[in-house]
Amino acid sequence: MNDHDSAHLNKWEKFPPPEAVVEGDSADVYFHRTIEILRKEDLNPTAVMEVFPNAPGIICGMDEVLALLDRVLPEARREVWALADGDAVASKEVALRIRAPYQSFGLYETAILGFLASGTGWATASGECVQAAGAIPCISFGARHVHPLVSGRMDYAAVIGGCAGCSSVEGARLAGIEPSGTMPHALIIVMGDTVKATLAFDKYIDQSVSRVSLVDTFKDEAEESLRVANALGDKLKAVRLDTPVERGRVTSELVKEIRARLDQAGHHGVGVFVTGGITPDRIRYFIERGAPVTGFGVGSYISGAKPIDYTGDLHEIDGKPIAKRGRIPGITASPRLRRVM
Amino acid sequence: MNDHDSAHLNKWEKFPPPEAVVEGDSADVYFHRTIEILRKEDLNPTAVMEVFPNAPGIICGMDEVLALLDRVLPEARREVWALADGDAVASKEVALRIRAPYQSFGLYETAILGFLASGTGWATASGECVQAAGAIPCISFGARHVHPLVSGRMDYAAVIGGCAGCSSVEGARLAGIEPSGTMPHALIIVMGDTVKATLAFDKYIDQSVSRVSLVDTFKDEAEESLRVANALGDKLKAVRLDTPVERGRVTSELVKEIRARLDQAGHHGVGVFVTGGITPDRIRYFIERGAPVTGFGVGSYISGAKPIDYTGDLHEIDGKPIAKRGRIPGITASPRLRRVM
Amino acid sequence: MNDHDSAHLNKWEKFPPPEAVVEGDSADVYFHRTIEILRKEDLNPTAVMEVFPNAPGIICGMDEVLALLDRVLPEARREVWALADGDAVASKEVALRIRAPYQSFGLYETAILGFLASGTGWATASGECVQAAGAIPCISFGARHVHPLVSGRMDYAAVIGGCAGCSSVEGARLAGIEPSGTMPHALIIVMGDTVKATLAFDKYIDQSVSRVSLVDTFKDEAEESLRVANALGDKLKAVRLDTPVERGRVTSELVKEIRARLDQAGHHGVGVFVTGGITPDRIRYFIERGAPVTGFGVGSYISGAKPIDYTGDLHEIDGKPIAKRGRIPGITASPRLRRVM
Amino acid sequence: MNDHDSAHLNKWEKFPPPEAVVEGDSADVYFHRTIEILRKEDLNPTAVMEVFPNAPGIICGMDEVLALLDRVLPEARREVWALADGDAVASKEVALRIRAPYQSFGLYETAILGFLASGTGWATASGECVQAAGAIPCISFGARHVHPLVSGRMDYAAVIGGCAGCSSVEGARLAGIEPSGTMPHALIIVMGDTVKATLAFDKYIDQSVSRVSLVDTFKDEAEESLRVANALGDKLKAVRLDTPVERGRVTSELVKEIRARLDQAGHHGVGVFVTGGITPDRIRYFIERGAPVTGFGVGSYISGAKPIDYTGDLHEIDGKPIAKRGRIPGITASPRLRRVM
Amino acid sequence: MNDHDSAHLNKWEKFPPPEAVVEGDSADVYFHRTIEILRKEDLNPTAVMEVFPNAPGIICGMDEVLALLDRVLPEARREVWALADGDAVASKEVALRIRAPYQSFGLYETAILGFLASGTGWATASGECVQAAGAIPCISFGARHVHPLVSGRMDYAAVIGGCAGCSSVEGARLAGIEPSGTMPHALIIVMGDTVKATLAFDKYIDQSVSRVSLVDTFKDEAEESLRVANALGDKLKAVRLDTPVERGRVTSELVKEIRARLDQAGHHGVGVFVTGGITPDRIRYFIERGAPVTGFGVGSYISGAKPIDYTGDLHEIDGKPIAKRGRIPGITASPRLRRVM
Amino acid sequence: MNDHDSAHLNKWEKFPPPEAVVEGDSADVYFHRTIEILRKEDLNPTAVMEVFPNAPGIICGMDEVLALLDRVLPEARREVWALADGDAVASKEVALRIRAPYQSFGLYETAILGFLASGTGWATASGECVQAAGAIPCISFGARHVHPLVSGRMDYAAVIGGCAGCSSVEGARLAGIEPSGTMPHALIIVMGDTVKATLAFDKYIDQSVSRVSLVDTFKDEAEESLRVANALGDKLKAVRLDTPVERGRVTSELVKEIRARLDQAGHHGVGVFVTGGITPDRIRYFIERGAPVTGFGVGSYISGAKPIDYTGDLHEIDGKPIAKRGRIPGITASPRLRRVM
Repeated sequence: MNDHDSAHLNKWEKFPPPEAVVEGDSADVYFHRTIEILRKEDLNPTAVMEVFPNAPGIICGMDEVLALLDRVLPEARREVWALADGDAVASKEVALRIRAPYQSFGLYETAILGFLASGTGWATASGECVQAAGAIPCISFGARHVHPLVSGRMDYAAVIGGCAGCSSVEGARLAGIEPSGTMPHALIIVMGDTVKATLAFDKYIDQSVSRVSLVDTFKDEAEESLRVANALGDKLKAVRLDTPVERGRVTSELVKEIRARLDQAGHHGVGVFVTGGITPDRIRYFIERGAPVTGFGVGSYISGAKPIDYTGDLHEIDGKPIAKRGRIPGITASPRLRRVM
Repeated sequence: MNDHDSAHLNKWEKFPPPEAVVEGDSADVYFHRTIEILRKEDLNPTAVMEVFPNAPGIICGMDEVLALLDRVLPEARREVWALADGDAVASKEVALRIRAPYQSFGLYETAILGFLASGTGWATASGECVQAAGAIPCISFGARHVHPLVSGRMDYAAVIGGCAGCSSVEGARLAGIEPSGTMPHALIIVMGDTVKATLAFDKYIDQSVSRVSLVDTFKDEAEESLRVANALGDKLKAVRLDTPVERGRVTSELVKEIRARLDQAGHHGVGVFVTGGITPDRIRYFIERGAPVTGFGVGSYISGAKPIDYTGDLHEIDGKPIAKRGRIPGITASPRLRRVM
Repeated sequence: MNDHDSAHLNKWEKFPPPEAVVEGDSADVYFHRTIEILRKEDLNPTAVMEVFPNAPGIICGMDEVLALLDRVLPEARREVWALADGDAVASKEVALRIRAPYQSFGLYETAILGFLASGTGWATASGECVQAAGAIPCISFGARHVHPLVSGRMDYAAVIGGCAGCSSVEGARLAGIEPSGTMPHALIIVMGDTVKATLAFDKYIDQSVSRVSLVDTFKDEAEESLRVANALGDKLKAVRLDTPVERGRVTSELVKEIRARLDQAGHHGVGVFVTGGITPDRIRYFIERGAPVTGFGVGSYISGAKPIDYTGDLHEIDGKPIAKRGRIPGITASPRLRRVM
Repeated sequence: MNDHDSAHLNKWEKFPPPEAVVEGDSADVYFHRTIEILRKEDLNPTAVMEVFPNAPGIICGMDEVLALLDRVLPEARREVWALADGDAVASKEVALRIRAPYQSFGLYETAILGFLASGTGWATASGECVQAAGAIPCISFGARHVHPLVSGRMDYAAVIGGCAGCSSVEGARLAGIEPSGTMPHALIIVMGDTVKATLAFDKYIDQSVSRVSLVDTFKDEAEESLRVANALGDKLKAVRLDTPVERGRVTSELVKEIRARLDQAGHHGVGVFVTGGITPDRIRYFIERGAPVTGFGVGSYISGAKPIDYTGDLHEIDGKPIAKRGRIPGITASPRLRRVM
Repeated sequence: MNDHDSAHLNKWEKFPPPEAVVEGDSADVYFHRTIEILRKEDLNPTAVMEVFPNAPGIICGMDEVLALLDRVLPEARREVWALADGDAVASKEVALRIRAPYQSFGLYETAILGFLASGTGWATASGECVQAAGAIPCISFGARHVHPLVSGRMDYAAVIGGCAGCSSVEGARLAGIEPSGTMPHALIIVMGDTVKATLAFDKYIDQSVSRVSLVDTFKDEAEESLRVANALGDKLKAVRLDTPVERGRVTSELVKEIRARLDQAGHHGVGVFVTGGITPDRIRYFIERGAPVTGFGVGSYISGAKPIDYTGDLHEIDGKPIAKRGRIPGITASPRLRRVM
Repeated sequence: MNDHDSAHLNKWEKFPPPEAVVEGDSADVYFHRTIEILRKEDLNPTAVMEVFPNAPGIICGMDEVLALLDRVLPEARREVWALADGDAVASKEVALRIRAPYQSFGLYETAILGFLASGTGWATASGECVQAAGAIPCISFGARHVHPLVSGRMDYAAVIGGCAGCSSVEGARLAGIEPSGTMPHALIIVMGDTVKATLAFDKYIDQSVSRVSLVDTFKDEAEESLRVANALGDKLKAVRLDTPVERGRVTSELVKEIRARLDQAGHHGVGVFVTGGITPDRIRYFIERGAPVTGFGVGSYISGAKPIDYTGDLHEIDGKPIAKRGRIPGITASPRLRRVM
């Protein structure tokens, strides 16, 4: 082993490769057949595979890839270069290069590309929101919009992409932060009144958790905001606006009015947290109109981001440049890559 | 328990609820807090939650939801109505209704919506391809474009949506079929020649597996198609065209020419299987131009389909109609729902 | 005098020609000069002027024109043919033909075209709303958006165009109906509460006037609707929704929800009257989505309608066909015209 | 009374409030009812109403409003702040603030908003033309396209917006200028020849009035321009082109050709005045192509301008901030307002 | 020689192959080199070339091609199949097939494709005008917009495409008709007056030639039309409108007005012939608006039509199917082709 | 005769006026009639005709015009001013002015305009390609897409517009250069193999002709490029890519890959020449993406360029300014014109 960054290793530990992946359960069946043929032909050349995305973005999923490679590549015959989670990557830029006996990694092409595709898709979408929001924090709230087997990974990628927090317990643990959250409509409906629900929240939940009250359940947001602010006083960190489409969604004018009414009643310290269909365009809409938002909760823009497809191409076999039609044979010059294994 | 379909139960067994989900690891943290507050307030009303998608589609993920509910809802106090995986669902149509003590299911709202969002997104995209393709089979080839923890679920959903096969081992097992696949460029590059690779495939791989040769690696597709057809003769099931963008993608004229040249050489039985950026529009393009395609391999159109978001709303608390602003209180008339629990 | 409709005359009486108009105060100055030149040249031929609109529409303003002509044309030497207020007119169709000594009407070309331009513009816009609304009545509410010297004329034209009512006292008197109206936000703000204002309205205002309560002033519309319906019971004719843009305007979902919540509380007889930016497109939006609206209040779509320009051309001088370039000399065949003077 | 501009008072005198307006004839009926209720409830609080436009523009109609308020507000209990006719106003900027007993002005909300809506609409459209035309004067020629009860007000607003003149006698009187005009097609048609009509105009009309001949009635404009220029010589101020759509409207090439032919014949001092469908876009078209136009006559672009709607909101009742939903309670900071009453 | 149509031969005689073409002067130089190489290699196989257009159209130029082939192909070893001038042809449809010794025709590929490209482009554009015009005749007037070496060919192709006449002497001779024409602006300008020029035309030109007067040179078209109609009486066949862009082009209203004024003056027999920027869209514009046009003169829409490119592909060498990549080897089934040589 | 450029005369000699043109065979028939009338009226004034294009461009065809005028104008009574072939010309700018007895040139208006229209159309299109290509040479390859009677003129105009070469023998002779060309698909198909055809070319064709091999006939371009480069070694000047649409046309990626594979095999001196649907947009596409193209072959973009219409107007008759409506009488100031005759 060589000059790679030992700090990376620690991160890989967070992502023990799932056994089903190691066993090839998630692989395309034709890779099983390929390995079978090559074994029977006794062909196991040292091969170089280069992996690149088909669109620009922010990389995520690389630590999962490296944890898998660390497990399956023979230590004595492996060289791996990679960009890191959180790095920007250009379209067609090589993000990962593996030089190893082909039989040791051929089966994992499916999983390697898959880790990167989903992770990069989520992190990139998160980065777009964060860039639009500038100094205003964004929180990933989309766990509910994606399969629970990957909702933690999604939230982790959102943090890698720049989000200040996320709502799922697993995502927060992977990211090494506390999970964020306010309260669901369900709590208010079960308790029958927003003020009652907010007071109960304040009574039972640890003081380290911010008090943020959801104010659009039963009454007009302005009326409800004043009710909860009057009830909780200084302890109220923010009101959360999540006005449904049927009531016109949250608008910049609504945020300004809530701010003005809270200020007129002396609640200068209560923030306004906005959720519901938040996208970079919606974030810019609020900012350009000067709406005093103190935080955005982003849902399906991140969790439903289209994966950014990656491609893995062989460029060298036993030291000889080679490539399929449409690609240029031999190692691609990639000065940003770092040797990690 | 009552009149629900026992066949359903068998299907649920395929999807044992992941322990991390049961423990709430994938849940939004505010549901943990909600349950904590309600426990301390000793509030556990019988609540009705209705779940509906925000766009029309083909349902998938419901069996995973039901397997989870079967595990967590108290048998004596539960009523569940649902549509089934594979059913069409309209926008805003109720797809699932739960009546149970709120504390028994409140924590799982995140996971319930997530199972359905991802599954329905994939199945719906698959259905669009299948509808466009008519009698020509579509195979899901997108495992490489999605996180390996859910690539099997994705392939399963593709089959639910109408695909005739899928490439991942896990997806095929969930769907109860054999996995499908041809051969990767990697095999041909490692072996150095398409004919050589195809003959090796034929020599070692079980005869039950179709021989489909990938003919765009090193030579012009027409030339290579004739070479492999001449080498394998009747045993060749099809050639697969996956021409890269750099060589102009697969066009309808290319398919027609390959067909004509194969026929002129007597290879009437060899099909033409097309992959690479396949979408419903591309499928229609081939069909409208009369290109004699015998199968489509669909990748990221299905695997990268945006999840179809679902919403869960409480409509009744202890028998009393209720709803947040923007929703209509009380049970929504939903004649297509069937009681399943 | 001849075969013209004597019923018409009665209508003209409604519109005594304003003295300033008769004196030429509203005329373009060059008509004063034209008359001066012709007098000095002693030229006063019998001239035929034809008047037509530049776009299709519903005629209004003709009675005002005829009242003026009746005053200024010499009875012995006049022939006037016209379409009537409320008639549809095609683009370029002759709507009015005058044969009289030119000096008797030349000065009034400005006023004649102006009466028709404004009136036809308003009536036509009204007709578009009414056609979109089908059986649902439309009320003209736009007096506030137009100069008070013509707000009554505007409301009159709206009724001519098909509106079932109008809000201004003068417009209603001209149209021979009772003025319509609900209550302004000002009343509610001065009295401090919607229920209190509605009860006061019910206490003091004549029972012949419908009780319609404006429910978006201080509280969410659904909450306020139930409060006023509960307070007034059967006497409440309708609630009026006028939700401001800052709260997302009135949506079809809001109307349906209000309807559902009123029905759930037993208030089946209370209608839902919608105002705020109503246009034919907005009316169609509500109807196509099945929103159970019972009346529309239309404002600036009618009152701010662009006048439909009219042109007056001389086509005959002392019995000889003539016309300027671009027009066809002589009397234009116009079978729909009726002799009115 | 206080520091307001006494020059203003003089202007108000130009606009004695119409008696029908003072009596509330033009008011929405629900204001009559509101006043009736408040009287019976004995409620007459000091109220603050703020009035603002819904789009940016040039204010007109304010003097008419102030003349009305001067008549109806009790001198001892009134405060009025306003911007002035001719001032630019931003969208949503407060243009008028009234503090007075509500019963004294509530009835006039309809008229106040209406004066401003129509006036500001006309003045703003005029300003757009004037800005496009730069140093070339624009004359308002649209009296014929609007109801004669307001054609004088329209022309007055056009001058407030920047027009150098207007054609109606009343508008010119209100603006304190001489009315402008050339000659109508009717004069030429009645007299049978353009040269004959122009010579008659020159013979009878006061020398203070410019001689401008309309040259598109019977002959090609170039031919006719030379005929009238040759006939009148130095006394001809300009020719007016008003070519109808049926002959291709006035084009920049036509203006240039007329200029060249006039110059070739030595008539360098004769200007070219253009009318017919003039809009800011058409004005820019002529200027960008270098057409030597010496004046534009603008018709329905100004007279048919959509009124700019104003809104009046109560923001204070007996000194207490208040507002309806969607608005911010209390006095809006408006540093540009001046105390006028 | 065989079954081909002897009538065709007669047509070919019209187009003796230009000697420079026969000598290869117009050929691409690489065909000279190709023939040189093949001669030195002593290679002269019987080759089949198929020629097809890249867009649908009406064929012209085929007779020129056949006249050339008749000259250069050895009678004993030639087979030629073709569609005929005037036939519709589909995109990619084989329009010509040659089987002959390659050296006898290889040099002429450039000329063969060029005859067809230009001819088909012109004939197709002509056909589009004729189809739009229905029963109203179109005359090709575009000789001035194309090189005089091919202006006759262009006019001939226009007649093949459906035009009723053409203006060039050579085009008319090729088409076997009399040339058509009215009079140029130059004649009128030289003679100084339209009526004078028309009377001179009538005095000197053979009575078999229609009298059509061009009426837009000096005066308004309506005035001039009446002047020439009054001067020539029944002998006037039509007036021609060619109004320049600077005067607004010919409009449907202008045609209607001229018609009305002619009719009012009793000149019912005088037609209205329209020229100037005529395209299928302009033709439809006149017809849809009911303008009583009696003939259209079409210029650069036909003469400037983009050639429709043809391609010539070898499909058989000495009886063996062959083709380049992208084409299907062997004879293409083409049932519409007729054997012509 | 005067100060005109004698170098011009030499150029005219290249274009002896075709006898059919001199005899008026290509003229519009109405010019024959015009000359006949004027002769019989004995009218032969000195007339000035100005000729201008209706769009900007690069002039070609002027030498053909001047050669014709030199033949037909009486030497003692002629003055001709002109811009030269290759000059840029603005829209409506006078490019040619003739002062001569009208009867001497009136018949040739059709031909004069036609020479210029076609020539300027071709040269202008050529100039657009050349400007887009910068330092990379463009060769005109479109002779096959235009009638052989003008294909040489077209190629000549392409060179005037900036092309470095052309493929037709006649075009090259007119331009005074050697014709350019590679080899046709036909040669390769007849010989059966690209390498064989290239070797034969090298064996028989004069060494002064560059060896450029067409590499897309039977095999993938990358494979074929290496085969011919290996076979010919240093003697190979370039490979030519002409990939058909059915194989995706030539892309920038293909050029880069061919370049890389040639370089990897040591063939640094072999260029890449690109043909097939080349337009200025396609040229920019290659350049902006950094594709190392060494030459472009342009076909129908130049040969199928729409002629740029010219207009000829009389502006003076016997010294008196005159013009038809829409034009300005008299000589147009044209400082760029030079006296040439």
